Amino acid sequence: MTSQSTRVGKQHILETAEDLFSKYGFQAVSIRAIAEASGVTNAALYYHFEGKEALFKEVLVHHAERLAGLLQQASAGCESLRDKLLAMLTEYTTHITSRSSPVFLLRHKSKGLDDKGLREQHGQLIHLILAPLENVLAEAVSNGEMRPLPEGFSAASLLIGMIHGLAQHRRMCARQDVTPEDIGVVVDVFWDGMRLRQESPAFLGGRAS
Amino acid sequence: MTSQSTRVGKQHILETAEDLFSKYGFQAVSIRAIAEASGVTNAALYYHFEGKEALFKEVLVHHAERLAGLLQQASAGCESLRDKLLAMLTEYTTHITSRSSPVFLLRHKSKGLDDKGLREQHGQLIHLILAPLENVLAEAVSNGEMRPLPEGFSAASLLIGMIHGLAQHRRMCARQDVTPEDIGVVVDVFWDGMRLRQESPAFLGGRAS
Repeated sequence: MTSQSTRVGKQHILETAEDLFSKYGFQAVSIRAIAEASGVTNAALYYHFEGKEALFKEVLVHHAERLAGLLQQASAGCESLRDKLLAMLTEYTTHITSRSSPVFLLRHKSKGLDDKGLREQHGQLIHLILAPLENVLAEAVSNGEMRPLPEGFSAASLLIGMIHGLAQHRRMCARQDVTPEDIGVVVDVFWDGMRLRQESPAFLGGRAS
Repeated sequence: MTSQSTRVGKQHILETAEDLFSKYGFQAVSIRAIAEASGVTNAALYYHFEGKEALFKEVLVHHAERLAGLLQQASAGCESLRDKLLAMLTEYTTHITSRSSPVFLLRHKSKGLDDKGLREQHGQLIHLILAPLENVLAEAVSNGEMRPLPEGFSAASLLIGMIHGLAQHRRMCARQDVTPEDIGVVVDVFWDGMRLRQESPAFLGGRAS
């Protein structure tokens, strides 16, 4: 095998595995089934991946990186930081309300993986997915448009939490889709709450404003 | 059976069922096991509950009502609406970070229940649990302390979403407990974001401020 065909082979196996895991879950899909569906031997599969658990984890990372890339792309044409957030969150929402989210895959299809491994993996995925949002929020803080949060906080995780709160409420209680206008309302509440203001210097702690 | 002993019997079965479902999940626990552990006959159990699914649903509602009662209690001594929110969310956080949350029971122990029934149930539970928070937030709007959100929004679900975002981030990425001070930071961001201000009359729509 050349290095080129090795890479193509690995990518192909990953995509096939993603498809199978998404449909049937971690537990129900065997290494053999993935090798067969990918058109490679078990040995070829083990050449790329240590085992089923390692393969599932690579599928999740691959998935999360793709989602982070889509968030980045969605915000490419935006001028203001607020518009970037809005574009990213609109893209994000289409993913969490469909079944294509890596978090969906993790939550619903990972039965059979051990808990500790899952928790660590989950942290890594959240970090990957939120990175583009964290970058925009950090820029807003360094611009002076937003106040910084204390140590131990992730502004993106609060904002994403609001979006999940909205999406869950709509799905469970209101049976109404989340529109880009709705996301605008959430971004406004968050942005206003985080705005750097003379009259409310909360959270600045030791920092001079 | 007198009406009094009937009520005691039902309550006792519910508590026994809650304990078993929490430990082993919906699927693994049989009606027979619940009857045995409760010290009643199958017939006595069916006198109170149509079947296992109906019993599980009553367990969840019972659980959610108890949590809503605890939120209400936690805020009883508070003077300001902001302090009420803070007290309720602090209580709420101890529940979502432990395994005693009804949502935990629903999410992790309900395998085997049909999806449609679950979704409806989930909406009902969220509604029950968030009611004390919704009431405080509605009071803040009618007081003029907060601006109203458009139709189709639940302010409590956004605020709870931030708390879940924070708790998830801590659990997965930071390995640090959520403190009451942390919850105060979240309430401040939300409160400032929702404050009724002359200079930013967003969301008021057709309403005169």
